[in-house]
Amino acid sequence: MRVVGAGIAGTIGAMNTKPLIALLTDFGLSDAYVGTMKGVILSICPAAHLIDLTHTIPPQNVRQAAYVLLTTFRYFPASTVFLVVVDPGVGTSRQPIAVETDHGIYVAPDNGVLSYVLPHVAVRRSVVLQHPAYRLPDVSSTFHGRDIFSPAAAHLANGVPVAELGSILPDLQRLPDPVLAVKGGEVHGEVLHIDHFGNIVSSIGRLTWTGPGMLRLEPRFGSDRAVVLDLDVTACRVTIGAQTLDGVQATYGDVPPRALTALVGSSGQLEIGKNQGSAAQALGASAGDAVALIMNT
Amino acid sequence: MRVVGAGIAGTIGAMNTKPLIALLTDFGLSDAYVGTMKGVILSICPAAHLIDLTHTIPPQNVRQAAYVLLTTFRYFPASTVFLVVVDPGVGTSRQPIAVETDHGIYVAPDNGVLSYVLPHVAVRRSVVLQHPAYRLPDVSSTFHGRDIFSPAAAHLANGVPVAELGSILPDLQRLPDPVLAVKGGEVHGEVLHIDHFGNIVSSIGRLTWTGPGMLRLEPRFGSDRAVVLDLDVTACRVTIGAQTLDGVQATYGDVPPRALTALVGSSGQLEIGKNQGSAAQALGASAGDAVALIMNT
Amino acid sequence: MRVVGAGIAGTIGAMNTKPLIALLTDFGLSDAYVGTMKGVILSICPAAHLIDLTHTIPPQNVRQAAYVLLTTFRYFPASTVFLVVVDPGVGTSRQPIAVETDHGIYVAPDNGVLSYVLPHVAVRRSVVLQHPAYRLPDVSSTFHGRDIFSPAAAHLANGVPVAELGSILPDLQRLPDPVLAVKGGEVHGEVLHIDHFGNIVSSIGRLTWTGPGMLRLEPRFGSDRAVVLDLDVTACRVTIGAQTLDGVQATYGDVPPRALTALVGSSGQLEIGKNQGSAAQALGASAGDAVALIMNT
Repeated sequence: MRVVGAGIAGTIGAMNTKPLIALLTDFGLSDAYVGTMKGVILSICPAAHLIDLTHTIPPQNVRQAAYVLLTTFRYFPASTVFLVVVDPGVGTSRQPIAVETDHGIYVAPDNGVLSYVLPHVAVRRSVVLQHPAYRLPDVSSTFHGRDIFSPAAAHLANGVPVAELGSILPDLQRLPDPVLAVKGGEVHGEVLHIDHFGNIVSSIGRLTWTGPGMLRLEPRFGSDRAVVLDLDVTACRVTIGAQTLDGVQATYGDVPPRALTALVGSSGQLEIGKNQGSAAQALGASAGDAVALIMNT
Repeated sequence: MRVVGAGIAGTIGAMNTKPLIALLTDFGLSDAYVGTMKGVILSICPAAHLIDLTHTIPPQNVRQAAYVLLTTFRYFPASTVFLVVVDPGVGTSRQPIAVETDHGIYVAPDNGVLSYVLPHVAVRRSVVLQHPAYRLPDVSSTFHGRDIFSPAAAHLANGVPVAELGSILPDLQRLPDPVLAVKGGEVHGEVLHIDHFGNIVSSIGRLTWTGPGMLRLEPRFGSDRAVVLDLDVTACRVTIGAQTLDGVQATYGDVPPRALTALVGSSGQLEIGKNQGSAAQALGASAGDAVALIMNT
Repeated sequence: MRVVGAGIAGTIGAMNTKPLIALLTDFGLSDAYVGTMKGVILSICPAAHLIDLTHTIPPQNVRQAAYVLLTTFRYFPASTVFLVVVDPGVGTSRQPIAVETDHGIYVAPDNGVLSYVLPHVAVRRSVVLQHPAYRLPDVSSTFHGRDIFSPAAAHLANGVPVAELGSILPDLQRLPDPVLAVKGGEVHGEVLHIDHFGNIVSSIGRLTWTGPGMLRLEPRFGSDRAVVLDLDVTACRVTIGAQTLDGVQATYGDVPPRALTALVGSSGQLEIGKNQGSAAQALGASAGDAVALIMNT
């Protein structure tokens, strides 16, 4: 099992007596869609503690939801129910599922939104949410978050075993892996995410500091997951579009205000940031743009 | 009593031992106005469980708040206190009120914001929030959400009877009904709401599927509430502006990606959506635009 | 001790058995940064009740966070832990601190973000958050909100004494005071904050009504804090840019719809508002603009 976060939660989570449900959707904040889901959950599991991850995933952007979930799940207790509703196929044949793992139970549409988390946990069972007793009496065609996913999460939080909710689904849908390829002294990746501050998060990671100025790359995505690459951060450069940045810094403050910098972000990914500014705005970057980390020869 | 939602809450709500307060405001998320209200509530009722419906109602848009409340109230336990503060008349002679019903206690300004919910619940009593013991000691002229409404909601959540808070107010302010008229084979309505995804929600509802391809309309607004109209969805069309859409679909995925579609939304209203896109943007629609559902002859 | 709010919390707060943590950040709502902090907190202190003040402080705007905190802290129970992470200096030499007072424990970077609150509370002790037992095992250089501040807040909510977290820090960083100068019959201030409604909040305060048409000014900022000024609101004017407004009103509804008005805002500051509209948009005002309250001669 690859440890994404700091791994504090495993033992401490057992202390959590109130069942915890973490919500991640693209429903936005201007309607009462999320509030309605919470009403449904609390009608079934009044003791639930509800935490919002985010509800402003760009509409139907399954990949961004998958990435955001990857960055946060490890910081929650292992007993957490993650309720993930980014669901462009609502009302079609895609299956609603629950996946029980050693770190979290995940309730979501089977559209790949769990792809980035699943390699980092041990899956115990996956089921289709088909048992009518664990849905609302009337199921709409357009709001399964309310009618199927929220009731399932609430019943799971109440302690109903995953196996009760429906039959086993052996194979889950997977998203294509993000670009991440290691060739000699070059690592080629792509922009995975632009955060609220305009930091450009790349697919190049997971990076950890192994000593002063020394980074280790253990690829998290792509076909080179067995590779381990050690880097001298003073002898490499990062390229994005026409921009080249020398070296990899520890934090934003290592460069002057308003300067661009490559650094290791809080999730272990290579990021391009701007000290006290927005790198994405400065560079006009967006998801999918090429990023490379190149050793100087 | 007309059932708006799935009606799961009635019996289960009694299990909810923590008092539940659901908040709906136009205060936005960039100040600490909502957080301050929550501080006031938790200072009075530390056990309260606080749930946000939404705080991004367009400033002073009482009608949109009334509609959003209609879509969600039924999914909460019947014991919920709804704290609704969209209040363009703050500091004027409009009254602050509490309305006790068989499904929720509503704390709000008396400006019509409860108009769309009240026909669907049994009102037990309405009072003016005038008793100083249930307000903050200093009442400002501009933030009754903090000084009057939040303390009232907190005391009600603590079990203080509604009748304690002030004297009976027999007649409440009502908003004009949305346009909804049935004439022969034509149903004329208007755009009621644009949601986060750009779905155009009309006043034409409540629609329920009675069989394959068969819809029943029981008007929720306007003067034709006694009408029941049965429709063959393959023999009708929906018009909005210059656009005509054939038939009514079950869900977005019933049309190709990027195509417009008329469908029954999650609250039983006729909606115009776009598969994986924004119908409102595609059509330039906004609240108040005419929408019609017309039987083919 | 100057009382900012209504002071309800002191005695009632003791009833609050669940530890309360109020969060204020500039992390926005589009990533899971805030959700991750909450996961960390609940892994350490499962009983914590988490309340959001706001997370949409403009990135790195320490002064606005300081002002927002000032407007809200008094409305929370005195036992509340305030977790404030607006931290342009993350990863640099600025210290992470906890400040215990008679009204709240404040966990924040030592960058002045507590400047506006501290004069209104009695500080008991300030410490540097340096004890590794109260941080996550791995501390990143870019997300101390997750790795240092959240664990500290959670342990404090669990009852760990502030003194356990690190050594005493005698002097805290302070922001420069907002402009506020009283000269004869003129009070000169500046725009401190534009709120969600477009109300222009000035540094001129704290204003309280002492009788019909009579206001008292007790300066909250600047070097004139000992001054007490009594004003006849019908014999003064307010200037902002080229605009002059006669008198100070009690509420928005005291002027016709769409008219501009000067009034005493909900935090006791002089505000310029627009009845049912945005004053900031009408006047093109922004933080730092000059505002004056001038007695007619």
